[in-house]
Parts: sequence; structure tokens; C-alpha cells
Amino acid sequence: MKIKDIGGEFGLIERIRKKVKTHSKEMIAGIGDDAAVLKHDKNSYLLFTTDMLVENAHFSLKHWTPEQIGMKAIEQNVSDIAAMGGLPKFAVVSLALPDNIDVEFVDKLYNGLNKKSKKYKIDIVGGNITHSKEIVVSIALIGFVEKKYLALRSGAKINDLVFCSGDAGKSAVGLELLRNNLKGKSIKKHLEPKSRLDLARKLMKIGVNSMIDVSDGVASEVKHICKESNVGAVIYASSIPISKDTVIDARKFKKNAIDFALYGGEDFELVFTAPENKLKQLKKHDVAAIGRVVGKKYGVKLIKNNKKYNLENGFDHFR
Amino acid sequence: MKIKDIGGEFGLIERIRKKVKTHSKEMIAGIGDDAAVLKHDKNSYLLFTTDMLVENAHFSLKHWTPEQIGMKAIEQNVSDIAAMGGLPKFAVVSLALPDNIDVEFVDKLYNGLNKKSKKYKIDIVGGNITHSKEIVVSIALIGFVEKKYLALRSGAKINDLVFCSGDAGKSAVGLELLRNNLKGKSIKKHLEPKSRLDLARKLMKIGVNSMIDVSDGVASEVKHICKESNVGAVIYASSIPISKDTVIDARKFKKNAIDFALYGGEDFELVFTAPENKLKQLKKHDVAAIGRVVGKKYGVKLIKNNKKYNLENGFDHFR
Repeated sequence: MKIKDIGGEFGLIERIRKKVKTHSKEMIAGIGDDAAVLKHDKNSYLLFTTDMLVENAHFSLKHWTPEQIGMKAIEQNVSDIAAMGGLPKFAVVSLALPDNIDVEFVDKLYNGLNKKSKKYKIDIVGGNITHSKEIVVSIALIGFVEKKYLALRSGAKINDLVFCSGDAGKSAVGLELLRNNLKGKSIKKHLEPKSRLDLARKLMKIGVNSMIDVSDGVASEVKHICKESNVGAVIYASSIPISKDTVIDARKFKKNAIDFALYGGEDFELVFTAPENKLKQLKKHDVAAIGRVVGKKYGVKLIKNNKKYNLENGFDHFR
Repeated sequence: MKIKDIGGEFGLIERIRKKVKTHSKEMIAGIGDDAAVLKHDKNSYLLFTTDMLVENAHFSLKHWTPEQIGMKAIEQNVSDIAAMGGLPKFAVVSLALPDNIDVEFVDKLYNGLNKKSKKYKIDIVGGNITHSKEIVVSIALIGFVEKKYLALRSGAKINDLVFCSGDAGKSAVGLELLRNNLKGKSIKKHLEPKSRLDLARKLMKIGVNSMIDVSDGVASEVKHICKESNVGAVIYASSIPISKDTVIDARKFKKNAIDFALYGGEDFELVFTAPENKLKQLKKHDVAAIGRVVGKKYGVKLIKNNKKYNLENGFDHFR
């Protein structure tokens, strides 16, 4: 049986989640959120996450500089900590490198890691190096979050509004440009994505019920929140924030930018839900209301051109 | 410039260590030990380590079962925590898998991860999955150690005795058997190495000044301790513990088993130094005295057949 036969990446994660038994009372949340939440002290939790970049799956040396690979490796892990409402603190870096790689490549990769570590006040405290055919950069990151600011995927409440930060779809359309040897402003958005750590902290202080970062597209992320929170949602396609540049670049493929926003990943924007009475405060920030949380029996729906659709999953490495 | 031109893996780690600037006062020890040591609470430190298994570099599906890959992935990380004197607690698992891999492979890999996690009371609290040409299993592990039991590479004192636990060289000779399509008892030692967590805890309670696990051979590990502790050492080849099975299997290549012990890795035994007055207590356990710590100016020497040699490095992925 192949991974695609059990529903791809998400099916496999679900299968693993059932296989892994955890016993510790010190685990508040584990597999199924952006980061594990572990007991730490009276006022705060420890957050623990990991994410990997693999050559050819996530980047090609034809398009990416070593600095950009290093930068994204940190950003994607920081994004997981941001989505929990926390702050990153300590990282370990595992590298697998082809035998014949230049030392200068490693230097530049570390320039990228260092640049972003400095930005986010992360200390790289360890790691290891081995050899491989393809370049692999695997990072594990420890962060901390005040208990009162913890954001889980499972916290959405019926009648919450659903929000999306910044603008969605830019990284996915940038990747499509690269694949088709086209040009456009979205390419840089793909090569140098930025997590929303500062924004996430502001949102938690206002009061958010659930949060996730955009790894696989807005559609997937809304579905993850609904599944973990045991609720449904209705999302309005016309409300999803998309930049002009993304619209312009999407036209180059005669595609609608909304599809990149819904089903393309790696934007590292935030999808979250909050009570309607927080709307006024939230609107002062770089976020847009895109829908509403409803009962589970309603399902997860997309309203587009006055028609109702079931929301499908986003990007999957194994489908 | 290639990695081999700057001294291989160890040269590259040294280069990275200089490039990475850490700022946090909460870091007690970082790059250059088996695990990072971070502030935790009044009585204990948090330990943080990561290690990766890559297909073809560390294992071949021709010889390894998926369970064995999972088991070793946990053991090699536990060994890093053991070498610090601590206990492992929480793990995250990053998998990179070829698109066409069977779900059953992943199930069995997780059987191996689960078996060892249960043994060591580790909770697997998160991870991620992506695709790749070669299988990659990257684990990051958090552990804890009471402050009084912390073991660093940098704690060796002049006149300490140098010890090695269990017996060395068995995994390296097992690998050599596999490579040459030969049989022997050492093969299982290579496929199913065991970390020395219980022993390490006992040693710390007796009182050890420095410790490291055997990843790259006894020679490398002694040199690491000497470098970090700013001391020299003299090691007696005839005192290094080697099992009869290792001797028998080494003979199949007309090689001396001592060379596998000194320069072959992945035994996950412990090399440590302790004051001579602890010898009586230490001798009750599965350890052997193999030398003595001396002044730095003396260097790191090996006495073999009454001749004195400089101790060379062990296994290096990039040389």
C-alpha cells in the first residue's frame, strides 16, 4: 500500500498519530498542532517543533541561493512557534550534504541561518553533519509561550470569525513562475518567505481562540482548525486577502489567484479564529476576516460566486 | 574548497562553531558537546540534541529492517543525552521518504521508534513528513539532567583516569562484515546498537569529571575530551576493552580488532574520565581503565606494543 492510497501526507500523519502512544502528563498538546506544548514552569509552556528542507522537494540550487535556503529553514520553524503564540529561543541544525559540496556553500547557508537567528533572537546551540545525495536541512526549535497566550488549533468556538493575515497565495504562484521559467514579483515571496511572529504575538494579546500557520494553503489550514476544534466553517472566497502582484502573476498561467491562496502553501501567514467582539481591535492589524466558525454538521464550506463548495485539502507531497 | 580540504567533518564543525554566535545567558554549553545544556530550573538543566540517519550513508535497505532503522534513530539520540549524564524525555521526528514507499515501511519504522521510546520513557510529541530520493530519519531529543550529575566533555582533570565502557569496535567490525558479505556475531551489534543510559546514570552518581559517547571511535572521543578540557592523554591500546566476538570477526579481514575500536564508530559506549579515588567503585560496573589524563603539552598519545604514537581521528563522513 502506498502513501497516496491512505490519503497522502495527511493520512499518513493521522496513521502515525494513532500509532504513537504518549504517556507523559507533562505534554499539553502533541502531534496534530504546529508545535508540541510541554509543561515548563508556573507561567509558561515549552514549545518544541521540527521542520526539514530537502533539495528538489523544497528547493533547487538552480533558483535558490544557499543564504535563502538557510533563511527559509529558520523561518518555517519560527512560523510554527508563532502559530502557537510563542517566541522561539533555541535551535539545533542537522545537515546532510553531498560529499563534493563546497565549504563556501555551507558558509553561505550558515549566513542565512545566522541572519534569521539574529532577527528572531534564536541561539543555534547544536547540530550534526552527515553526507547524502541530496541536501537536507533539518531544524528543531524550542520556544516558550506564556500560558495565557497559548494558541492551539483546537480552540475554535462556534460563531468565531475566521481570519487570514497578510495576503495568501504569493509563495505558491512564485513557485509556479519558477517552474515555468517566467518572471514576476512573487518569485521573491517564494524564495524569501517571512513568518508572522510579531503579528502573532499582537494577536494573542488581543485574544484569539485558535491559530495555525499557512503551510499547505488556506483551505488545509481551515480544515485543520475545524478538525481539531470539532467544528465546521464557512469561508468566503472573495474575502481571502490576495495582493495585486499575486493576481498579476497568476494571470500568466490563466489561473485564478484564489486557487493559489486556497491550495498553495508556504506563505507562513496565519489563519486564526476569534470572537466577533475582537473584530474592531483585530482590524487595526494586517488581517482580514474570511469566514465564520459554524457547527460541525455543517461541514467546511467555501462560498465562491454565490455557490457553495466543500473545501478541499491543499498541497500534499505524496499526492 | 571541499569539506575534506578543511579537515573533513570535524574541520567543518569547528568552522561552523566559529561562525555561530550565541548570545543567551541561558546556554550553559552549546556546539562542541553531545547535547546543548540550557537553563531549566533550580536543580536541573534542559538537554537538547539532534541526530540524523540517512539511507546509504548510515543504512542500506539490503541489510536493515525498518524496525532497526527506527530503533537506531532513537538509540543514537539517547546516547547523546546519556553522555551528558541526563535522562531523555521528549522527541520530535522528521521523516523524508521516497514517493513510492510502502505505508508498511513507515508502520515498521514507527514500531522501532515506539519500541525504544517505550524502553527509555520518551514521548514522541511531534514531527513532520516530506519526500526525498533517499530515506532520512532526523530526530531531535529533549532531556533533563540534575545539575549535580551534568557531564561535559570539558571537565577532564590532569591525573584523571580515562575509562571506556562495555567493549569497543563491535559495530564497526559488524559493518565491515556486511560490506564484504561475510557473517559474524558483530553484525547484530552494528544493526542494533544499544546506548548506555542506565550505566551513564550510575557513573554520574559515583562521580565522573567528563564524558562522551563513542560515535566515531575511541580515538576521536578521547581527542574531543582532551580538546574541550585543554589537556592531553595517554591511552594504552592493550587496555581498550574488546570482546572475543569482535576479535574473531576482525580476523576475517586480517585486521587487528584494536583498529576497529579506535577508529570505527557507532558503538554508543561511553568514554569518560574520573579521579583515581573513584576506581574501586567504578570497577564494580562494566567499564575498563584505558589511560590517564596528562598535561596538554604532552599531546594525545597511544601506547601500543611499547611504542608511542599520536592518536589519530576516527571515522569521518567527508574524508
